[in-house]
Amino acid sequence: MAGNRAVVYHGPGNVTVETVDYPELVLKPGPGVPEGNKNRQCPHGVILKVIATNICGSDQHMVRGRTTAPPGLILGHEMTGEVIEKGRDVERIAVGDLVSIPFNVACGRCRNCQEGQTGMCLRVNPDRPGGAYGYVDMGGWPGGQAEYAMVPYADWNALKFPDPDQAMERIRDLAMLADIFPTGYHGCVTAGVTTGSTVYIAGAGPVGLSAATSAFLLGASVVVVGDTNKDRLEQARSFGCETIDVTQGDPKEQLAQILHRPEADCGVDAVGFEAHGYGAEAGTEAPATVLNSLMDTTRAGGAIGIPGLYVTGDPGAPTEEAKHGSLSLRFGLGWSKSHSFTTGQCPVMRYNRGLKKAILAGRTSIARNVNAKAIPLEQAPQGYAEFDKGMATKFVLDPHGLIPA
Amino acid sequence: MAGNRAVVYHGPGNVTVETVDYPELVLKPGPGVPEGNKNRQCPHGVILKVIATNICGSDQHMVRGRTTAPPGLILGHEMTGEVIEKGRDVERIAVGDLVSIPFNVACGRCRNCQEGQTGMCLRVNPDRPGGAYGYVDMGGWPGGQAEYAMVPYADWNALKFPDPDQAMERIRDLAMLADIFPTGYHGCVTAGVTTGSTVYIAGAGPVGLSAATSAFLLGASVVVVGDTNKDRLEQARSFGCETIDVTQGDPKEQLAQILHRPEADCGVDAVGFEAHGYGAEAGTEAPATVLNSLMDTTRAGGAIGIPGLYVTGDPGAPTEEAKHGSLSLRFGLGWSKSHSFTTGQCPVMRYNRGLKKAILAGRTSIARNVNAKAIPLEQAPQGYAEFDKGMATKFVLDPHGLIPA
Amino acid sequence: MAGNRAVVYHGPGNVTVETVDYPELVLKPGPGVPEGNKNRQCPHGVILKVIATNICGSDQHMVRGRTTAPPGLILGHEMTGEVIEKGRDVERIAVGDLVSIPFNVACGRCRNCQEGQTGMCLRVNPDRPGGAYGYVDMGGWPGGQAEYAMVPYADWNALKFPDPDQAMERIRDLAMLADIFPTGYHGCVTAGVTTGSTVYIAGAGPVGLSAATSAFLLGASVVVVGDTNKDRLEQARSFGCETIDVTQGDPKEQLAQILHRPEADCGVDAVGFEAHGYGAEAGTEAPATVLNSLMDTTRAGGAIGIPGLYVTGDPGAPTEEAKHGSLSLRFGLGWSKSHSFTTGQCPVMRYNRGLKKAILAGRTSIARNVNAKAIPLEQAPQGYAEFDKGMATKFVLDPHGLIPA
Amino acid sequence: MAGNRAVVYHGPGNVTVETVDYPELVLKPGPGVPEGNKNRQCPHGVILKVIATNICGSDQHMVRGRTTAPPGLILGHEMTGEVIEKGRDVERIAVGDLVSIPFNVACGRCRNCQEGQTGMCLRVNPDRPGGAYGYVDMGGWPGGQAEYAMVPYADWNALKFPDPDQAMERIRDLAMLADIFPTGYHGCVTAGVTTGSTVYIAGAGPVGLSAATSAFLLGASVVVVGDTNKDRLEQARSFGCETIDVTQGDPKEQLAQILHRPEADCGVDAVGFEAHGYGAEAGTEAPATVLNSLMDTTRAGGAIGIPGLYVTGDPGAPTEEAKHGSLSLRFGLGWSKSHSFTTGQCPVMRYNRGLKKAILAGRTSIARNVNAKAIPLEQAPQGYAEFDKGMATKFVLDPHGLIPA
Repeated sequence: MAGNRAVVYHGPGNVTVETVDYPELVLKPGPGVPEGNKNRQCPHGVILKVIATNICGSDQHMVRGRTTAPPGLILGHEMTGEVIEKGRDVERIAVGDLVSIPFNVACGRCRNCQEGQTGMCLRVNPDRPGGAYGYVDMGGWPGGQAEYAMVPYADWNALKFPDPDQAMERIRDLAMLADIFPTGYHGCVTAGVTTGSTVYIAGAGPVGLSAATSAFLLGASVVVVGDTNKDRLEQARSFGCETIDVTQGDPKEQLAQILHRPEADCGVDAVGFEAHGYGAEAGTEAPATVLNSLMDTTRAGGAIGIPGLYVTGDPGAPTEEAKHGSLSLRFGLGWSKSHSFTTGQCPVMRYNRGLKKAILAGRTSIARNVNAKAIPLEQAPQGYAEFDKGMATKFVLDPHGLIPA
Repeated sequence: MAGNRAVVYHGPGNVTVETVDYPELVLKPGPGVPEGNKNRQCPHGVILKVIATNICGSDQHMVRGRTTAPPGLILGHEMTGEVIEKGRDVERIAVGDLVSIPFNVACGRCRNCQEGQTGMCLRVNPDRPGGAYGYVDMGGWPGGQAEYAMVPYADWNALKFPDPDQAMERIRDLAMLADIFPTGYHGCVTAGVTTGSTVYIAGAGPVGLSAATSAFLLGASVVVVGDTNKDRLEQARSFGCETIDVTQGDPKEQLAQILHRPEADCGVDAVGFEAHGYGAEAGTEAPATVLNSLMDTTRAGGAIGIPGLYVTGDPGAPTEEAKHGSLSLRFGLGWSKSHSFTTGQCPVMRYNRGLKKAILAGRTSIARNVNAKAIPLEQAPQGYAEFDKGMATKFVLDPHGLIPA
Repeated sequence: MAGNRAVVYHGPGNVTVETVDYPELVLKPGPGVPEGNKNRQCPHGVILKVIATNICGSDQHMVRGRTTAPPGLILGHEMTGEVIEKGRDVERIAVGDLVSIPFNVACGRCRNCQEGQTGMCLRVNPDRPGGAYGYVDMGGWPGGQAEYAMVPYADWNALKFPDPDQAMERIRDLAMLADIFPTGYHGCVTAGVTTGSTVYIAGAGPVGLSAATSAFLLGASVVVVGDTNKDRLEQARSFGCETIDVTQGDPKEQLAQILHRPEADCGVDAVGFEAHGYGAEAGTEAPATVLNSLMDTTRAGGAIGIPGLYVTGDPGAPTEEAKHGSLSLRFGLGWSKSHSFTTGQCPVMRYNRGLKKAILAGRTSIARNVNAKAIPLEQAPQGYAEFDKGMATKFVLDPHGLIPA
Repeated sequence: MAGNRAVVYHGPGNVTVETVDYPELVLKPGPGVPEGNKNRQCPHGVILKVIATNICGSDQHMVRGRTTAPPGLILGHEMTGEVIEKGRDVERIAVGDLVSIPFNVACGRCRNCQEGQTGMCLRVNPDRPGGAYGYVDMGGWPGGQAEYAMVPYADWNALKFPDPDQAMERIRDLAMLADIFPTGYHGCVTAGVTTGSTVYIAGAGPVGLSAATSAFLLGASVVVVGDTNKDRLEQARSFGCETIDVTQGDPKEQLAQILHRPEADCGVDAVGFEAHGYGAEAGTEAPATVLNSLMDTTRAGGAIGIPGLYVTGDPGAPTEEAKHGSLSLRFGLGWSKSHSFTTGQCPVMRYNRGLKKAILAGRTSIARNVNAKAIPLEQAPQGYAEFDKGMATKFVLDPHGLIPA
């Protein structure tokens, strides 16, 4: 093979598509690869011909320069594709299989994997628990916004679609299984969403809309989504959500008008550390504002799911404290309401099989709800730019032109 | 008040509507009232003007003479109505409230109630754990197929609809909260139904159809319902279920055609002890046939929810063993597949609040799915007869002519 | 009856024992009683002859002047006693019963009580969810550090000891069921403690020692307790705990020496908002220090239980932020480790029955482990003073001289 | 290596120790190996030098001729040992590691393994879900009552002891992690045993005694064990259990004397299909008697854990029905008490890590409680014979003479 077109990060605001090495069943030294992972052999891996690979809001954190991501990093952690080569120790997955790859890289052999916490795998990242593709500090595994990519521990990680033809008909939906659909679902599950729940989801980006879709799938009675972006709120309304424009005043008051009480049963933070203030804080970053608002708007005894990303270090943060990942939280308020808080990367494997079956049976329309739009891989830089402007679109890169119109 | 029209059981096949005493806040001696419950004072009770009160399949067990129900018993345990009088110790519920009453009579003060097992209340039935209205061996609480009925421990038991006008618009749906909707939902929950599950429900009577409705609400991908009754199967298909006519051969083979594998993730027994055989056993009662079939058709590692009623004594059973509630179960098969089995009366209170919110938000159409049909209380005998013939209808008695057309 | 000796709060550092009104089955207007609770009738209540009533660390928050507790408040929320009078609505509890009273006042009739969240009862406190005896902002229910006290909703709240004579032999242990034993146990349960867990408990006061006792009961392999108080650490070692003196350096390093790894499976915050710093912060209050330390010392994928009290307002706090209950938390660290956090008042009823049975069977020695010491009610002021100095003792007030030596 | 001494089954009552082939990293054709498993390559496997390997009650089912086990089968599924060779795909486990091997053979790559149901692995047995070593119908994996054995998927299956020297000091206890300790623990967990529970365990063989040990570890207040064998009951009493000699009358009456009520909170069936009757049925096999008794002696709302083995076919059964694994169960009784029933092979991996930590910390004495006795491998036939006579001993075979006295 001659090469491999891929999306490469070069510095804040600088993303290009270029030709990189064709992947092999080894983790070669490269940008962000920790010492302990260099030249790690992957006979348990497969080479994926990438059919759909999405741009994620968490990619934006890097591209905006809010992390220590190294130049040269191949981006992308939301891969769906066809297995075209497999390592000698791969048994369950076969060449020709169409698969979804969870964004978490997991070994399937450590305590955390055995206990279902694949987001905190202990063996794929020498620096700390948890690995991911194309992401800063997550083990250095090359990203999947590319024509081809390597997936280690494929028998453990890959989720197979039994009928490739049927799957290709729903490929836009299935592409969301790699990250945002399970991530939104995890937010709802950990917020306690079940039949009849009222749910307030802060954030109407793709994860927020995935959480809203999940809330309906879990039986929620009323799903309310809050944001500052009118297009995204419009998108939320398009599939039955109620919405709150947080630029228009206190979410609690608006919630009271919708629910006839000022608190929802369940709260989901689908924003994370780059939250912006509203009201008096409008226009400035206010990293604790979403969590504080959720303590205010979640009922006593309720739970708050936090799929939105918070980081240990944020060089671009507005305050010294926030630079070190410290937030000023109204913890006393949460405590007085007996809230519970669940944080962290979604362990995708816990949910993707069930969500796959729901998609294939036509029970949910995640691609429509997040406004998935397929674009050629070569247009990735434009996709990043438009998404960064707040466009209510989930961009699906289509490296081989295989996604049906 | 002059009296109270009510449905009274007089013996096998003999049900009439007659005038009985207007209820008071006391459990007066009467048919089936145990010694320890006679003259039990109920200052914690309310008098309900019954607006909707359904005929249940479990009433049929009594009317068919398959129990030791005493003549003179007022039938009915599925009540929805308006509170028109309350005891001195009722605080939370007010006169004028529109409420759903769980079929379980529960005290709200014993260990089991405190732990959420309201189906096994230890204080409302001196003979054994668990109470119900209008039912043999369940404490002697008079039934609710009547114009008026007494509900004890109303602050604990009654589920209030916040807006009576809104509730009256969905009264047919809300009437199902007293029993069959939570019962079917409990069957699914205990069978492990969740997002993406495939579910096989044995029985397309009202509980089976409620289970199917619940399965969709819980996110099931494919819901398959089996029965011998073509009308009921047609009803199941009308809201998206796949169906199996068990008179046409082994359910496992039919399931394989639908699911592309011979086993479902989850199994629900919505039939109970009056099951009939098929194939070689066609036409005869075969009380173990459903459970044995479910062990065959549920995947290894799956669970089986058993809302269908099994009894400790069945005077009309075909065999000596079955007369004592013993069944010949292929337990070794279930064990080899690591099945779990959950039995018993549904603890309605665990589910009815969430289901209420789902109904009021328009997320489910239980009345339509079970083909609810309102008829005047005076037509109860015809309702019993038609339901007994296998009509695919859930009869809702309308004692005061208040159910909107 | 002539009167009722009781412990009364008069202002910071000022606690006396004096004669107050003998209780009746009504919540009379008094210090801290909200408007909506004044003259609330309690036919569901009982009058308790208080046999054991403990001083709690959370009482100290008030006595130190760190709350807005009103002068005249009768203190005490940890009551064990004999029922000597009962209201007309009381059925399950009888005069002569020996009972433990959960510190949460709960109605047993609202949604939260029905769902087992008795710490967040919606009907006993007009100001916000959750009630307690003798506590600021918790509904104004008079405290139980008295000869006699009124307990509302007794059929729901009171836990009965089946054999009073047997119970009196273990009355010091059983007295801990009202609060600290379930509270410590809740901390462990919500931290995920189970067979084999390693547990780090911050705080060796009575709640910390209760948590440690609970951790052993739940099967923990290694229980480590950290504090600055040498006597309390000695007490922890006396029943098998490992200890960390946080004045001697970073808990993480000390933990690594004990566990051979720097993180425990589970973390419990048994300190709360009055935490003090160590190292560079030694001697000063540092309300976020315990939570931040627990994020550092709990393994990725682990959970943190937070029975330690955090408040919505703390007039005596060292910073403006802390005065409003805001803490500077290293939330990014917790998020990166997928921690979950459970806060709030323990719902005592969820645990006290099981713990009672464990005590009566001799499986645990909670009184010995927390160094319970019975003193006459009249010595309550000295008890408060000594406890405030950090004495490793749990004071049990003995209003009637009935606690066996 | 020249060969491998191993315990071989030759037919009912006929067990010998002989020299078999030294294991390789392949499943070679042999007795009981299904077609689809013949010559299965195992680069993911390790060769274990077996240090401790126990005789299990379920081995006895085969040796008594109650199964279709083929002659030539190498027995044994409870292995602990040292890794002396590893396949190319093994990463986590190293040569020299001391490990416990769960009796379930599991691939770590299928849906059931991913979901933690390692007892129902879908890929190690072509005939049906679930694999085991040395067992009929479980995939044909050679047994571990041998000097050396092959363990497939070692990175997934093997549980490592961090410090081999420390582990050798507790090797008798750790040897129980391969099967009976987790199996008994699973029985208790699925029966709902928690702090304060009263538990009735039917059967005082090694699994019953393991369940009793587990019940204490889980915090049970009273643990009652029933059997017909006086020596085994004596063994149960030796570590604090109450006992019931079921030859002396109805268990329910005896239970009432111990617990002051006739029912326990939780029931565990540690007997299985070879149960014997008592009372009128004394001396005969009565395969349903234990389950029926547990429905009688478990409280309404309680759960029944069933680690005791039930089979799909039993050629030696006393009745035609039992030959096909059908039992006459008083299911109506269980249903009326809302019992739940959990069956199946224990998924050892779910529990063995926690139990290991409890053993290493000295929190439990499983070897002492089951009366573990190490004997040379060559004495295996005598061990089988004595265990079959009902000796209250758990035999641990010691192939290399390495178990300390």
